[in-house]
Amino acid sequence: MATYTHHTAPTQFVEANGIRFAYRRFGMAGGVPLVFNMHFTGTIDHWDPAVTDGFAEDREVILFNNAGVSSSSGEVPDTIAGMGSNAIAFIGALGLTHVDVLGFSIGGLVAQEIALQAPGLVRFLVLVGTGPRSGESMDTGTPEGKEIFGVTYAKPDDLWLRVHFTPSETSQRAGAAFLERSHRRVENRDPEVMQAAAVRQRAAIAAWGAKREKAWDYLKTIRQRTLVVNGSDDVIIYTVNSFILQQHLPNAKLILYPDSAHGSLFQYPEMFVRDVAGFLNQEQWS
Amino acid sequence: MATYTHHTAPTQFVEANGIRFAYRRFGMAGGVPLVFNMHFTGTIDHWDPAVTDGFAEDREVILFNNAGVSSSSGEVPDTIAGMGSNAIAFIGALGLTHVDVLGFSIGGLVAQEIALQAPGLVRFLVLVGTGPRSGESMDTGTPEGKEIFGVTYAKPDDLWLRVHFTPSETSQRAGAAFLERSHRRVENRDPEVMQAAAVRQRAAIAAWGAKREKAWDYLKTIRQRTLVVNGSDDVIIYTVNSFILQQHLPNAKLILYPDSAHGSLFQYPEMFVRDVAGFLNQEQWS
Repeated sequence: MATYTHHTAPTQFVEANGIRFAYRRFGMAGGVPLVFNMHFTGTIDHWDPAVTDGFAEDREVILFNNAGVSSSSGEVPDTIAGMGSNAIAFIGALGLTHVDVLGFSIGGLVAQEIALQAPGLVRFLVLVGTGPRSGESMDTGTPEGKEIFGVTYAKPDDLWLRVHFTPSETSQRAGAAFLERSHRRVENRDPEVMQAAAVRQRAAIAAWGAKREKAWDYLKTIRQRTLVVNGSDDVIIYTVNSFILQQHLPNAKLILYPDSAHGSLFQYPEMFVRDVAGFLNQEQWS
Repeated sequence: MATYTHHTAPTQFVEANGIRFAYRRFGMAGGVPLVFNMHFTGTIDHWDPAVTDGFAEDREVILFNNAGVSSSSGEVPDTIAGMGSNAIAFIGALGLTHVDVLGFSIGGLVAQEIALQAPGLVRFLVLVGTGPRSGESMDTGTPEGKEIFGVTYAKPDDLWLRVHFTPSETSQRAGAAFLERSHRRVENRDPEVMQAAAVRQRAAIAAWGAKREKAWDYLKTIRQRTLVVNGSDDVIIYTVNSFILQQHLPNAKLILYPDSAHGSLFQYPEMFVRDVAGFLNQEQWS
């Protein structure tokens, strides 16, 4: 069956909560779609075609901009809960009642909120490069992250080489390959995220990360089968936060990849798709 | 090609270092064999046929008793280094020059020693339910472990239900199924391990676990691609030790399974075989 790919899928729009959501949808229809939630200041075009097309071979892939981000209208909420509620409205507006949810970085926080607010909507969860409420250094951000995001780069892409990849030669080479892939689409690309949206995203992350009593108890209420994934050396959301997620979620598997950072899914796209698809194709553990 | 299975493979013997090593060897020959290193007081018969026969479908599996254990002659060394050196002698006596090494619990300590002492012998490492030198609570043993091993059980198998599985109903049910599988072989079973051997194994673990300065630096010298696996709630060798291994080994992937303990490989034999075989079949990450 012919279908669109990462590079050819048109940007479509759907209205919900007074927001006009931009999205792209492609891949093998008929099963449970996989809805992708993007990282800080990322747009639909910041996903890796090797990842999205990899999943699209045997499932439907839905990429979207949440409210106030790039080609979606509305305002970025100043809480992750608000972003989760907008994501739920978007998924509902597509007429979907059962989805798998993948979230990367801030998208992983949103994915948790989707599961918390609409547990019946979510079959399985995939949490990549992310962490729990009150996770380590998630209120203030990490010193490494502040330094990386604080520098002005000659080329904007140089930022992502430092955010998503380790300094090792192997990782940087994988980073250059990822960036090349992510630029192959030339038609109808998403506009960059506005500074005001980034500021509100950052405020929402800080509020999520604020220290609380019994901060991780809420994870026990996320009953979905969950796969937690990260690189060995994530300095944006420390890798230990992925370990904490797995230790406190009641039904979670953890995978950490070697010599990799925040963007481990972009460094090892084939292994990531294989590991995640294996997880999504299993009805139960065992 | 007809081959032996877990239940039909004869116990064979080979001499090296003045020790007569008992082993069983079966599965698909022609590739790199996978050598299994057993847990504390375990014999060849304590492996799970669902795991060993699972691997045997596309590789050769070698199970053995290290020196002084069950049907192997000699004395249990009082250091893990001594056990590693005996294991290397055993592998060499089979005429093998390149193997994959899987170690479970104390067997995972021995596996690290094999890689340290004979790096050229080892292609890939699989470390299950184990930890680094000076790992958390590995010198004294954990309080939970002391309690579990200190009790006298009505049936000897009840010990393993507590060592390898969590108290959850699901995990205990998986435990009962594992024990049933491990008893199916009736012919030519291995004798139980003697108390004196157990005491020496315990002393070797304590010496390995002793606190040291820069205890984890040695892990940087283990260059093999490594897969570290454990249950979410190992109370014999705390799960955090698997995280520490992955964080300090230069080339390691970590997988933690949900609602599982020391014996996660026996709780999820199919998922374990799939995850490990996937790792062994990849020449490189990616």
